[in-house]
Amino acid sequence: MSARLGRLAVIGVGLIGGSLARALRATGWVDEIIGCGRGRANLEQAVELGVIDRYTHDIAEAACTADLVFLAVPLGAMRAAFEALNEALPAAALITDGGSAKGSVVADCRAAAPGLLDRFVPGHPIAGKERNGVGASSAGLYEGRRVILTPLAENDPNAVEQVRSMWQSCGASVTEMSVEHHDEVLAATSHLPHMLAFGLVDTLARMKENDEIFLYAAGGFRDFTRIASSNPVMWRDICLANRDALSPMLAAFAEEMNALAHSIGEADGVELLAIFERAKAARDRYVEGLNRP
Amino acid sequence: MSARLGRLAVIGVGLIGGSLARALRATGWVDEIIGCGRGRANLEQAVELGVIDRYTHDIAEAACTADLVFLAVPLGAMRAAFEALNEALPAAALITDGGSAKGSVVADCRAAAPGLLDRFVPGHPIAGKERNGVGASSAGLYEGRRVILTPLAENDPNAVEQVRSMWQSCGASVTEMSVEHHDEVLAATSHLPHMLAFGLVDTLARMKENDEIFLYAAGGFRDFTRIASSNPVMWRDICLANRDALSPMLAAFAEEMNALAHSIGEADGVELLAIFERAKAARDRYVEGLNRP
Repeated sequence: MSARLGRLAVIGVGLIGGSLARALRATGWVDEIIGCGRGRANLEQAVELGVIDRYTHDIAEAACTADLVFLAVPLGAMRAAFEALNEALPAAALITDGGSAKGSVVADCRAAAPGLLDRFVPGHPIAGKERNGVGASSAGLYEGRRVILTPLAENDPNAVEQVRSMWQSCGASVTEMSVEHHDEVLAATSHLPHMLAFGLVDTLARMKENDEIFLYAAGGFRDFTRIASSNPVMWRDICLANRDALSPMLAAFAEEMNALAHSIGEADGVELLAIFERAKAARDRYVEGLNRP
Repeated sequence: MSARLGRLAVIGVGLIGGSLARALRATGWVDEIIGCGRGRANLEQAVELGVIDRYTHDIAEAACTADLVFLAVPLGAMRAAFEALNEALPAAALITDGGSAKGSVVADCRAAAPGLLDRFVPGHPIAGKERNGVGASSAGLYEGRRVILTPLAENDPNAVEQVRSMWQSCGASVTEMSVEHHDEVLAATSHLPHMLAFGLVDTLARMKENDEIFLYAAGGFRDFTRIASSNPVMWRDICLANRDALSPMLAAFAEEMNALAHSIGEADGVELLAIFERAKAARDRYVEGLNRP
């Protein structure tokens, strides 16, 4: 398989959808790209930038002549998208998505378009920025990044292979895991850190002298809280979509922080040093891994 | 006042002490700089780099001919330093420090060298990196950064003015606040974020499939956890020194995270969006403030 495709429909032409469009156009993997979204200004910018060839606000219209549909809408908009695709998708066309949680998207497909399950290959490119919109997209966003596919029992193996090949052509490294495992892993590495960053900034902002407090935040604070500048609606949707994995993990982390507060209060230097040394070693190993060629 | 000084003794020639030495030498504020520390290799490197003129391993020897002593040792080593200074400090010489918590350092001075309280002006430059040692130091580290002084009731006003002038000559912006307020502010903006970063990385590292989990951490995770690569001994000392402010603040934050876990579990999208929007607005304002000329 892994042939190139004729026509790509990108539903949601923002950072994620726009970057896939740019990358597939750059490699010549598609002939034509149709964008679909709600905001006219963003879609017109996408045409001007050459990211898409034309656009519509109607998902069914975008999909009805497509060979591949890429769903890059917020998680809260996935079900409505599947409802539109259920009627409109051509018989041979494939669907994949870029959602940050997979269980909810699969549930949406199963509820709204069960007949499409053989051709919907759930995916998640591990890439992102705090900026949104097609203006932030780039052809190189997925270069050297990981993409996780979570193939379904119903999936046609050729569909999985086609989607894998698409991401590889963007320079991404593709791996597969189960939907449930994906949602656990991402809760730990992405969703939990975002909750801590949002929570910390919100806590500080609600303190009495919050203006003064932010004055004395050093460089480490800026890095630590960068992800708190992410899109609030997107993150509300991610929390709701992945609540089964995220809520208990966040509660367990709160317990860890309570225990740490206790160790600090008790001046337990041995325990504190053990935690900080384990963390530093793990973090240094992680960075070494990133830098390995 | 604000005259330049003849001889500076830097106790602890690492990032913080080494950078002050470099900056004061660059501005010609001091004639001679004596370094003091335990590790010979680091001190010899400091001489080779021109950061200090000579060194000793003995605090009393370093201080006994100094006009100004800068204490840049870990917080856990402050009391012993004051004990050494109590005997050795010349009558007209001043002391200041760079410790990240101020209450414990003042308590150490009060316990070990109460006769020096008029001439010890506690200070804290809000600057740091994850790297340590004189090799990481630079003359420009304090350029445009904030330095907090927490003058004591016992302080000679001329001593405070002299220390203020020293930091201003390094390009820093100097403000004053009480010891207690400093420790609250720093618990919020620096110590708490470090606890979250250390805690998060440690929690992930103790998960069953921790190697796999770190594989899927995206760019945001790298920024978010950068401060978890900081020196574990230094951070143990900071936690112990500032435990009165930090322990309750961390426990309160754990409660916030429990409440957030509950909101996520209950799928309370309204509450989640409100938190994330407040946090994003506060974080964006903070960055705007940093970028303001």
